[in-house]
Amino acid sequence: MPEQKPVRARTPPKPSDLRILSKVNHMLESYVESLDDRSQKVVQFKSPEEIAKIFSEKACDLSLNDGQPVGEEAILNACEATLALSVRTGHPHFFNQLIGRADVTGIAGEALVAATNGSAYTYEVAPVFLLIEQELMNKTFDLVGFSRDTAEGLTVPGGSISNLYALQTARYYKFPQVKTEGLFAVGGQPVAYCSEEAHYSYTKAALVVGLGSNNMVKIPTDFRGRMRADILEKRVAEDLKAGKKPFFVGATAGTTVMGAFDDVEALRSVCDKFGLWLHVDGAWGGAVLLSSKYKKTLLSGVEKADSFCWNPHKMVGAPLQCSIFTHNRGHGLLQACNGTCANYLFQKDKNYASYDKGDWTIQCGRKPDAFKTWLAWKRLGDDGIRQRVEYGISLARYAANSMRESSVESSNRFKGSFVLYRDPEYANVCFWYLPPSLSHLKPLEGLNAENAVKLTKVTPYIKDKMQREGLAMITFTGLYNFFRWTFTSPRNVSYDDVDIVMGEIDRIGQDFVSSA
Amino acid sequence: MPEQKPVRARTPPKPSDLRILSKVNHMLESYVESLDDRSQKVVQFKSPEEIAKIFSEKACDLSLNDGQPVGEEAILNACEATLALSVRTGHPHFFNQLIGRADVTGIAGEALVAATNGSAYTYEVAPVFLLIEQELMNKTFDLVGFSRDTAEGLTVPGGSISNLYALQTARYYKFPQVKTEGLFAVGGQPVAYCSEEAHYSYTKAALVVGLGSNNMVKIPTDFRGRMRADILEKRVAEDLKAGKKPFFVGATAGTTVMGAFDDVEALRSVCDKFGLWLHVDGAWGGAVLLSSKYKKTLLSGVEKADSFCWNPHKMVGAPLQCSIFTHNRGHGLLQACNGTCANYLFQKDKNYASYDKGDWTIQCGRKPDAFKTWLAWKRLGDDGIRQRVEYGISLARYAANSMRESSVESSNRFKGSFVLYRDPEYANVCFWYLPPSLSHLKPLEGLNAENAVKLTKVTPYIKDKMQREGLAMITFTGLYNFFRWTFTSPRNVSYDDVDIVMGEIDRIGQDFVSSA
Repeated sequence: MPEQKPVRARTPPKPSDLRILSKVNHMLESYVESLDDRSQKVVQFKSPEEIAKIFSEKACDLSLNDGQPVGEEAILNACEATLALSVRTGHPHFFNQLIGRADVTGIAGEALVAATNGSAYTYEVAPVFLLIEQELMNKTFDLVGFSRDTAEGLTVPGGSISNLYALQTARYYKFPQVKTEGLFAVGGQPVAYCSEEAHYSYTKAALVVGLGSNNMVKIPTDFRGRMRADILEKRVAEDLKAGKKPFFVGATAGTTVMGAFDDVEALRSVCDKFGLWLHVDGAWGGAVLLSSKYKKTLLSGVEKADSFCWNPHKMVGAPLQCSIFTHNRGHGLLQACNGTCANYLFQKDKNYASYDKGDWTIQCGRKPDAFKTWLAWKRLGDDGIRQRVEYGISLARYAANSMRESSVESSNRFKGSFVLYRDPEYANVCFWYLPPSLSHLKPLEGLNAENAVKLTKVTPYIKDKMQREGLAMITFTGLYNFFRWTFTSPRNVSYDDVDIVMGEIDRIGQDFVSSA
Repeated sequence: MPEQKPVRARTPPKPSDLRILSKVNHMLESYVESLDDRSQKVVQFKSPEEIAKIFSEKACDLSLNDGQPVGEEAILNACEATLALSVRTGHPHFFNQLIGRADVTGIAGEALVAATNGSAYTYEVAPVFLLIEQELMNKTFDLVGFSRDTAEGLTVPGGSISNLYALQTARYYKFPQVKTEGLFAVGGQPVAYCSEEAHYSYTKAALVVGLGSNNMVKIPTDFRGRMRADILEKRVAEDLKAGKKPFFVGATAGTTVMGAFDDVEALRSVCDKFGLWLHVDGAWGGAVLLSSKYKKTLLSGVEKADSFCWNPHKMVGAPLQCSIFTHNRGHGLLQACNGTCANYLFQKDKNYASYDKGDWTIQCGRKPDAFKTWLAWKRLGDDGIRQRVEYGISLARYAANSMRESSVESSNRFKGSFVLYRDPEYANVCFWYLPPSLSHLKPLEGLNAENAVKLTKVTPYIKDKMQREGLAMITFTGLYNFFRWTFTSPRNVSYDDVDIVMGEIDRIGQDFVSSA
């Protein structure tokens, strides 16, 4: 049907929208500047109902039910409330996750990406972002020891997706027929392996790709949290004997809880023996690549891995999220594994189509996550990142040392005492706090049922109080709920902060028995 | 080993880093304000070598090889160069992809998320972002017609990953044993279906989950680009007879190339007959939910789908990326399908743990993509989004109408003529430009080999020239390389812009024969 003569004209950006952007930017600059302020709480702890009420009072309901547009003031109020009520992950006493304060230059880079609204699939649409992504890959190849002639890489949305890529790439490499025919074409159950202390994303990846979680076999670890290569070898041999199809070993450089590093050399030997793909998940520990001091001891042999990933959004401080997946098994492998050659997007007769990366991925539109990391890296330099990493490790050692001292009888510093679950190798410190009433317990030697129940309650009790008072955030897990304290954004943490936080744990925890 | 007495103090944000943030923010505000400026080129087309040279000259090499930190000025230079050399997806004449100008309020929201560096896994760490995500889900449920009592949803990194979630959820729903035992436990080849015109991510999802691309069966379409329900029914029956295990139909609301909408009612009947999961991929066309006028004709029956996804980063203008995956098959399904209950993160004895969503996902850290969309939605209101969608459709109809008129003999407006590949239903216009020398061709009736070769060269020729001159960007695909013109960010496009771009195509294309 013919259209009426049009009357509607274009709508350029509204001045009030531009004003919102400018005002929010000012708000964010003050926010970032204030992150060092220790008088601020790490979190203003509120219930969902309280948060909803605060937004309502600011004329900007959380709910979108009524569908009414709101004015400039309400939008600014909502942004202020969001900043006020969100956890200050950049606070010096936020130790809860493997993310922390975002690098300021990285924040600027992320804002730039949002303003350009680019998508990293084709050179045509994202020339600068794709070239910069490749430079970030090249740097990673060089640091890992992969050859630029055989390695490929991508930024992907998070470490879990990186591990999924690894499993997917390895599966294709070993069983290329799976791409078109599916898993049944393998003619036997494919099996993969990781350690008991590996990140849960290995299991999730196994369920996604159709192996099933039981076929991501968890291999026991040694006293330092490393996958037992001897047990792996035995298990692979058994699985082969049973007609299964082992193909993948997922190692870890920096486990989530303990910060343990698998012995890549030992695992490589097993993988070579059976023709298995060796992936190293360096999401957390990969930053050690920048420290020649620790790389030698913690990442020895990493260049022999088939694939490697790491998350600059963790120790390097890029804003969430930037995860880098790389492999060293030949150019063209990612295209072969994931490509479907959609001809509306990846036309071969376009300019510089050889720079396109979209068809290497399992996404289509892809946020250009490399830019913010690249910008932060340019600003920090290799040495700036090295300092972060080494200082993070040094803070963990300082905390561990203070804890060891706390259990010496002559120490009067704390009412209770701190017991290390394991000596830290990286920037994780896992420990229990024993209130005076439980100071006699030796959790590492095992506890009777009654004491186990008691100790298991201590950490959540302390954590809850610290959270409600907004003092600090440290997560807990595992045996009798030990604390896991991680130094992810060390630049803004001082040794004094470690002392202060330990003091607070002692102050809150010493009353445990009477209040629990 | 005991640590030396520490001497290193904390490093608060550097004043020069804060200055970088402030200066980049100013740069971005000017950039966003300038997006309406039609005198700017859509792209300053450069080769990779030219881009590298420009960065070098600005003292900020693309390469990270030397690892040296650079100063404030070089960082600002690099940001300026990136803005100058990146494609202006917010330019009124950028029609190349299903992304366009990002909503200004949405950009502010994205910057806020980067500054807080939150991760949407737990209430503990992201209380506001999780509550807001749920409100965006609730709004989606209401618009689709899903019940809040049975529907669940998540923001995920892109429409392709949404379709992967759909396939994954459906597989678990039908074959729960796959989660632990893997695909072999199904006891037969699982099969899924989508249309020939569906997005390639259905195929990618099929390879990821281990079905194999051949088991994402492509069903032919009718003259309006809709999956043929009768052929689907026949094919499913055949596959069942052959011992296969059909379980999933992936419908499309707004196909990528044509903007066609599958007939959900008809597909629902087939799915009911065989007990198949019906997913509707509304990545592109889902925005029609906001227009009661078009919802009736294009999305009729969508509430009967088992799952539905859409991308506010397309027609709604949220900055890349925000994709919403929802299903209507009961609370707890996503946790059951994807959960692994990692106890370092999803402790049940934490405050408000029932609000945690991290274990529903296949990621771990997850960028809080809902916030920017929510903020933009609050600003625009339902009616603001409705206007965008309806105006986008109206621009497409206006363009199509001008093209129809161009082929009328009495029209003198153009030297060549425009031929529609198909009448637009949504905001996509697919067409060929016929230069005067080829005006006699009737591509819809088929061409001989010689003319096919000729016509196939016309579109890339025009596109290349437009790109080099920075005039406009429109992608091409399919039969004889037709143009696909999409109106993704209609707010800033006028009817005059449509006329201007058609005029440019005619100006460039009319010389085709002599230059080719």
